[in-house]
Amino acid sequence: MCPVWFPVPPEAYGGTERVVALLADELVEAGHDVTLFASGDSHSRARVESVFQTAPSEWIGHTYWEMQHAVNAIRRSRDFDVLHDHTGLLGLALGGLLDIPFCHTVHGPLDGHPGRFYEDVVSLVPRAKLISISLNQRKPKEGLPWIANCPNALDLSVYPFRRKPGGDYLVFLGRMSPDKGAHRALAVALETGIPLKIAAKCREPLEIRYFDEFVRPHLGDTIEYVGEVGHADKVELLMGARALIFPIDWEEPFGLVVIEAMACGTPVIATRRGAVPEIVEHGRTGVIVDKYRDMEDPAVLELADSLDPDVLRREVEERFSPEHMVANYIAAYEATIAAHPA
Amino acid sequence: MCPVWFPVPPEAYGGTERVVALLADELVEAGHDVTLFASGDSHSRARVESVFQTAPSEWIGHTYWEMQHAVNAIRRSRDFDVLHDHTGLLGLALGGLLDIPFCHTVHGPLDGHPGRFYEDVVSLVPRAKLISISLNQRKPKEGLPWIANCPNALDLSVYPFRRKPGGDYLVFLGRMSPDKGAHRALAVALETGIPLKIAAKCREPLEIRYFDEFVRPHLGDTIEYVGEVGHADKVELLMGARALIFPIDWEEPFGLVVIEAMACGTPVIATRRGAVPEIVEHGRTGVIVDKYRDMEDPAVLELADSLDPDVLRREVEERFSPEHMVANYIAAYEATIAAHPA
Repeated sequence: MCPVWFPVPPEAYGGTERVVALLADELVEAGHDVTLFASGDSHSRARVESVFQTAPSEWIGHTYWEMQHAVNAIRRSRDFDVLHDHTGLLGLALGGLLDIPFCHTVHGPLDGHPGRFYEDVVSLVPRAKLISISLNQRKPKEGLPWIANCPNALDLSVYPFRRKPGGDYLVFLGRMSPDKGAHRALAVALETGIPLKIAAKCREPLEIRYFDEFVRPHLGDTIEYVGEVGHADKVELLMGARALIFPIDWEEPFGLVVIEAMACGTPVIATRRGAVPEIVEHGRTGVIVDKYRDMEDPAVLELADSLDPDVLRREVEERFSPEHMVANYIAAYEATIAAHPA
Repeated sequence: MCPVWFPVPPEAYGGTERVVALLADELVEAGHDVTLFASGDSHSRARVESVFQTAPSEWIGHTYWEMQHAVNAIRRSRDFDVLHDHTGLLGLALGGLLDIPFCHTVHGPLDGHPGRFYEDVVSLVPRAKLISISLNQRKPKEGLPWIANCPNALDLSVYPFRRKPGGDYLVFLGRMSPDKGAHRALAVALETGIPLKIAAKCREPLEIRYFDEFVRPHLGDTIEYVGEVGHADKVELLMGARALIFPIDWEEPFGLVVIEAMACGTPVIATRRGAVPEIVEHGRTGVIVDKYRDMEDPAVLELADSLDPDVLRREVEERFSPEHMVANYIAAYEATIAAHPA
């Protein structure tokens, strides 16, 4: 069960949808029989089953649409060895109440209100098994019924590794929100005088307000907003950059763009939040700073420049390959089935 | 479990919320121990339990809010003899998956897509019991697990019966939608030359568009739009009217305003759709026409004028009193508990 709001794989922004699409394809590749519940405009090597011909994006977050999608999957649940949900708390609650092997990947953070809400829902569905995408993600709620940790992965074939030498700009990729910190990337770029290209999703009212208030006023000769980019443009942006700036200020549960940059051989300069220290090893596969203002330190940029692109690429190949993710998920499914009372 | 989007009782439009508020109050009055899951700004003689201090009206229909409300009730479900849901398909699915005595009142129509969706959800929750608010409401889906029919009721003490003689205007009450038919009421009023007062909810984009296109152009000397009215104004409007025009063109599952008019001694002229023939007996407690254009027939208006206000009032007292509704629901709860495997 994939979130129904956008087709998979997504055309532009959408880390969760990208990972679910890859997982389904790679499970089929590995010889498994997979049904993907997603909108009808999705493309997958798995069998796609849909209640909507096109993704109901304009109704994002509405129960009436989400329920139809979830109910369609749940009605079929006894046809499968295991039901795996990526949709969110509604999918977790409905799937978890069924007497079937059921697991759910948590794609969001668990601090604050979402964490407490997860705890409430889990208390209703003691049979459900949870999968984290980083160990750090679990920290606020170690007591939940975790059955596996399955870090996200990339289809490396669509991230060409032909490093352009001497990139002269920094790049920020994400969405327009204080959590992700385009405004902090801006501050670093303005202070150091290094050009910055910002590519970010900016569709929803809060994103547009944030953009108008904190980003738009600073656009100019050296600071460029290139909009929300598709895959090819994103790869071009990453390959040509001196470094990816990842100045997050929240418990980012994974941070797919970090491994996307690494796959292109582009060093990442990130704040020490969320899963960053699990993905990046400071001084070898990336640069981690305690405060985003430290990114202005010339020594930090020099350290980033000194990293070996081959090492970055190899790290992704070894730790964040589809084969790795599929093996992790297969083990998670086996554990879910084993934990289910016969 | 009450819908969480508006406080109960509602200040203006909101038939379901009004009925749930009355049911909770009257169950307490009858000596039962009742917990009402509703927004914190609700008022009830029952114990109100809330996750939201004020109703999250601006998020109407969104899963994240609806789930919090439902999960709060469901976590407590084992503390009660029976859990009774009025919220909709999410409440039905979650409550129905629990191994507790659970019933759900269907407040909407069951023809077309909602009916098929109800069937899908019910197929997941074979233990859930359904309650209709009219027998006609069941017709498209007679096979659902109906356990009782509990027509809506009124708190008659807030519908004073002091009939003003010789009302000279027609009144339309409802919301701005083609189903309810303010534009048909308009056509009747323009054709007969009788003044019309329209009181209707007009908040949502589709309602506003309908109003602008089909109603606003006809406002003038004899056609007046008085906005969405609170209870006192509604009763004044009804008491002073020659008749309530109820030109529905959908399978209205009940039609609370019909009994509100009758309680005030005001005759109702309605199209033969939905539950109308169950509520109104043509020629004795109201006037039913096959086509709304028949309402323009002078004989129809004369028949309405000839109805005895005392008979209308007594009909509501005898068939749609709170005591009646409470007795029906108590029987439904007992049947739900009896049907639950021990």
